[in-house]
Amino acid sequence: MESVIVGGPASTDLALSLSRLLKLPLLSVKYTEFPDGESKVTFSEKVDGSTVILVQSTYPPIDKHLMELFFLAHHMSQEGAKVHAVIPYLAYARQDKQFLPGEVVSLAVLSHLLRSAGVSRITTVDIHSAESLRLFSIPIYSASAIPSLVQYAKKNLSVTKPIIIAPDFGASKRTEAFATLYGGEYARLSKERDRVTGDVKVRQEDLDVKERDVLIVDDIISTGGTVRAAAELLRKAGAHKVFALCTHALLVGDAQERLVSAGVNEIIGTNTVPSKVSKVDVSEVIASHLRTLTE
Amino acid sequence: MESVIVGGPASTDLALSLSRLLKLPLLSVKYTEFPDGESKVTFSEKVDGSTVILVQSTYPPIDKHLMELFFLAHHMSQEGAKVHAVIPYLAYARQDKQFLPGEVVSLAVLSHLLRSAGVSRITTVDIHSAESLRLFSIPIYSASAIPSLVQYAKKNLSVTKPIIIAPDFGASKRTEAFATLYGGEYARLSKERDRVTGDVKVRQEDLDVKERDVLIVDDIISTGGTVRAAAELLRKAGAHKVFALCTHALLVGDAQERLVSAGVNEIIGTNTVPSKVSKVDVSEVIASHLRTLTE
Repeated sequence: MESVIVGGPASTDLALSLSRLLKLPLLSVKYTEFPDGESKVTFSEKVDGSTVILVQSTYPPIDKHLMELFFLAHHMSQEGAKVHAVIPYLAYARQDKQFLPGEVVSLAVLSHLLRSAGVSRITTVDIHSAESLRLFSIPIYSASAIPSLVQYAKKNLSVTKPIIIAPDFGASKRTEAFATLYGGEYARLSKERDRVTGDVKVRQEDLDVKERDVLIVDDIISTGGTVRAAAELLRKAGAHKVFALCTHALLVGDAQERLVSAGVNEIIGTNTVPSKVSKVDVSEVIASHLRTLTE
Repeated sequence: MESVIVGGPASTDLALSLSRLLKLPLLSVKYTEFPDGESKVTFSEKVDGSTVILVQSTYPPIDKHLMELFFLAHHMSQEGAKVHAVIPYLAYARQDKQFLPGEVVSLAVLSHLLRSAGVSRITTVDIHSAESLRLFSIPIYSASAIPSLVQYAKKNLSVTKPIIIAPDFGASKRTEAFATLYGGEYARLSKERDRVTGDVKVRQEDLDVKERDVLIVDDIISTGGTVRAAAELLRKAGAHKVFALCTHALLVGDAQERLVSAGVNEIIGTNTVPSKVSKVDVSEVIASHLRTLTE
């Protein structure tokens, strides 16, 4: 039975790309948005019996993209298809445990709803925390965009005496992987986030960045608060150029402008979230993983 | 075992009202919205073993209010509570069948997700079509706000030679019920909606409204296209005052201003959707139904 690709409204380009790389047909689906914000999904072709690779990222508007994913998956699974959801940016992944008593573990609810909507397998890219994969009762794989980010950096960024920086503890493994492939020293800053107010403080720990070019590597840049604090600290410490590299550049509101004001020379993200800084294509990373499943 | 009320962020006032009318405690829950649009729910008190009446309407932003509902319901059902969802305005109720081939029946997916999130019973108000209740596999009841709208009209609208108008076929039963309680003649216009372009045409059929006051009654006013077309037609036919009464006044964008320009003297809605025209309180209508369940 042949597999087909369905591109959700959040990831039409990535779906087209995967269809080309995997030489799989792209099913035609029409999306309507009503003035009150309701979404309607209409399949132009019949879905039957095959495996569907449903590509839908869940960047903002997050809940809208999630509902579209549920509509698509439920309909296709009801029609008898096996639904493999490719969710390049998986929302709610930062709320993967109770940080304070009484908190709802949003990612656990999402995991439950995705399965219930008929999703039987998930592929995502650089999930916030590897530990959170345990919240899923269906197979889930988080592909890494780090090699692609490294490839971009090597090819496009002109740097001298580079140092790779993790802006906080959570980013250290990713940064270490980046530094190993890129070649070069790495270090991490220490961050404290007030769980109640959300305020971020970043500290430098015996770090000499004077006249060096810095590559800050993180998984998500949302408002950019963490990277901004890091960039300001590194600039004060005498850093030369500052680059911010991440997988998911949500760049909420005026995040991009504020990062530039804080001294960031360039922001580099991937197309898990389409934006002006989506300079790195993750299609091949996802396609490679999908190939291992069909072999 | 005592029941408790939980007010979702979309219906805090209605939840407070129900808590007073039913003399049931209101559980304290905190809602956070992150800059990227993710919602976080934190329970300040433990939920255990009791029946929870979870009040959350799903007016725009629809998908956000739905996700909050899923987070609340799933968490409480996991904690062992029986979750009775009061969803005063139930979104996606207009997509309750395939109007064109290949369309996803959004309400069927919603019904499935609500159950899967742990909801075991639903109470709503004036669901778009009574037939759509068949899509639910858990008990669902649609309370009627018509008596409350009639009460408001009798008390507050000064009218002469009134005629009650259904703007389309779908609204006729509601309008008939309204006219029976209000006293007075009723009639309906015929509407044609192009299912592809969404354009609305309204026709008058042997209707004498000259120098009469007209009460247009419908369930939902979204962009107001249908009511606007009806009001223009009735004005041209010589109607005196035109009132628009509905249960769910979504009033998307500049709908209110455009209705006024089309000759609508006053718009009357209920608090299923909180707005400037929420002049009718549905708390007692919902409370009455809830009382029948506990008796």
